[in-house]
Amino acid sequence: MFENSEKTTLESLGEFGLIEHLKKHVVLHHPETIMGIGDDGAVIQPENKQVIITTDMLTEGIHFDLRYVPLKHLGYKAVAVNLSDIYAMNGKPTHITVSIAVSSKYTLEAIEELYSGINLACSNYKVDLIGGDTTSSMSGLTISITAVGIANPDEIVYRNGAKKGDLICVTGNLGAAYAGLQLLEREKQIFLENTSIQPDLEGHDYILEKQLKPEPRADIIRQMKELGFKPTAMIDISDGLASEILHICKASVCGCRIDAEKIPIDQDTWNMAEELNMSAITMALYGGEEYELLMTIRQEDYEKARMIADLHVIGYITDTPGACYFIDSKNELHPITASGWDHFSK
Amino acid sequence: MFENSEKTTLESLGEFGLIEHLKKHVVLHHPETIMGIGDDGAVIQPENKQVIITTDMLTEGIHFDLRYVPLKHLGYKAVAVNLSDIYAMNGKPTHITVSIAVSSKYTLEAIEELYSGINLACSNYKVDLIGGDTTSSMSGLTISITAVGIANPDEIVYRNGAKKGDLICVTGNLGAAYAGLQLLEREKQIFLENTSIQPDLEGHDYILEKQLKPEPRADIIRQMKELGFKPTAMIDISDGLASEILHICKASVCGCRIDAEKIPIDQDTWNMAEELNMSAITMALYGGEEYELLMTIRQEDYEKARMIADLHVIGYITDTPGACYFIDSKNELHPITASGWDHFSK
Repeated sequence: MFENSEKTTLESLGEFGLIEHLKKHVVLHHPETIMGIGDDGAVIQPENKQVIITTDMLTEGIHFDLRYVPLKHLGYKAVAVNLSDIYAMNGKPTHITVSIAVSSKYTLEAIEELYSGINLACSNYKVDLIGGDTTSSMSGLTISITAVGIANPDEIVYRNGAKKGDLICVTGNLGAAYAGLQLLEREKQIFLENTSIQPDLEGHDYILEKQLKPEPRADIIRQMKELGFKPTAMIDISDGLASEILHICKASVCGCRIDAEKIPIDQDTWNMAEELNMSAITMALYGGEEYELLMTIRQEDYEKARMIADLHVIGYITDTPGACYFIDSKNELHPITASGWDHFSK
Repeated sequence: MFENSEKTTLESLGEFGLIEHLKKHVVLHHPETIMGIGDDGAVIQPENKQVIITTDMLTEGIHFDLRYVPLKHLGYKAVAVNLSDIYAMNGKPTHITVSIAVSSKYTLEAIEELYSGINLACSNYKVDLIGGDTTSSMSGLTISITAVGIANPDEIVYRNGAKKGDLICVTGNLGAAYAGLQLLEREKQIFLENTSIQPDLEGHDYILEKQLKPEPRADIIRQMKELGFKPTAMIDISDGLASEILHICKASVCGCRIDAEKIPIDQDTWNMAEELNMSAITMALYGGEEYELLMTIRQEDYEKARMIADLHVIGYITDTPGACYFIDSKNELHPITASGWDHFSK
């Protein structure tokens, strides 16, 4: 897809040329950014706040398949998943660094596409791109992003604060990103078997967007601040609900009960699950890359929490460490096991 | 080299298992580290200091060749080169995140070797490993490290502060890392042509160590603080002296004269240059990966600067932007051009 000979090779531009080129599109939003791209390091002034740092690495063929992921979406998503981690700490993302390694098949135009998505995410979430590294690889594309956020010490929410009786809540709905991935994979297979058949993605905009262009839940964090409460524990759902609630319960030394019927699932996800002959509940429990927030809140904050339309109570915390169950529609208990995404077991 | 079947596969451990395993060896040094590995993000408390952030990505086959780079050295160097950037801002490195993508050929034992070098560098430079990402790749090893440092606002040194008359100084000596690389490459070629011939690295310890296990110049930064002066501009030499002085001159809108005869070069580098029939001066001007510091200092600080044994004056700053020259032994002027490492032009 990058072999058009009229395009600009990275060799002709050089590493410094590429950095200069990419720098032109960078817009800074924060007065705290003392120095952005252009020195040995970036410099920020966090004043009296605490600084949150998180990082994620995405590799071609493992995390994304460029046969169906547009580069602009990939850039956007690579930023979004890191911002999601900062929001999951109840912080405000302020800065990112972006490092990429690309093989010689990538043209300048391809890298520009990738960065147009990165810059769009930075613009939408008012985040400053302050540095990074651009280098070559023997094969494929690797993207490593580090996000920096700030928060007052008393605002930060860890995984370890859940207490008995706390309500377990989730934002948005679950399983959609997984359903979107399954659809894309199915259509890819059909196309590979017969290249005259065009992919049929009609009517599945929602699950495709959830997979290709997830949005971190900045809106929920803002609403909780406006309503004047904060969760006792929080995590973002990158590896599946089951895996994430186990993280919270382990860190908080507690157990949980999740009502499977209360897990919010979009109609499009139900439809796709039916088409694929899969269980939508299973998709919602184990599907990764949702980038919704999973949190526990005090019961006394429930009246405030229910003002947030897209925040849903799905269970509660118990005081028995390790006793983590979900209850199915027949009122039967099933132990929750971590069968989320695990990059080494695929 | 990783195919011993008795070794532990990463698949059998899983991503979370690997993180738990690696976490055991992490020692934290800083009270500013509020949360290290184990949540969506790490949290640090920089008090009233400014925060410096820098990042580097190393890819197998481009930045390192595992046929002659031991994994422990690679881990050490990957950290060292990032710390070097923090020191080049006159900051104190405090934290790093480490992300790696590895193919299935890597065993747990191989990753442990890599991390033993990472942990050793953290221990030597009192830096806290606070997070990262571990994932798989389709081929090879990619390491992305982000380093965080702190400094008082008035301590930070940028590239843009050089003024007419300032003295240009360099730490240590130059060309050695390049000479070491040439030696390793030569012996690799000989070995590939005839595997019964063992590599002959005898008597070249210094240039090999400079290539395989560079040390960032924390000692020089400390000595300057003790002596009570700071450079007007500073950069670390990762892409070669010529390239770096051009960065300083461009950012500072000035010119320079460098006396080629004053560039410090180790005897081992001279010997290797002779063996390879290359110019040692060329190696010193254009050889990358030195991780020495290049700085400009006020003339009035010269008396203090000369107390630092390993800091050497090699030239001075002029007020003509873009007029950057070095003077050879015949007193002839040559324009300095950037022929440092450029990852896309190799």
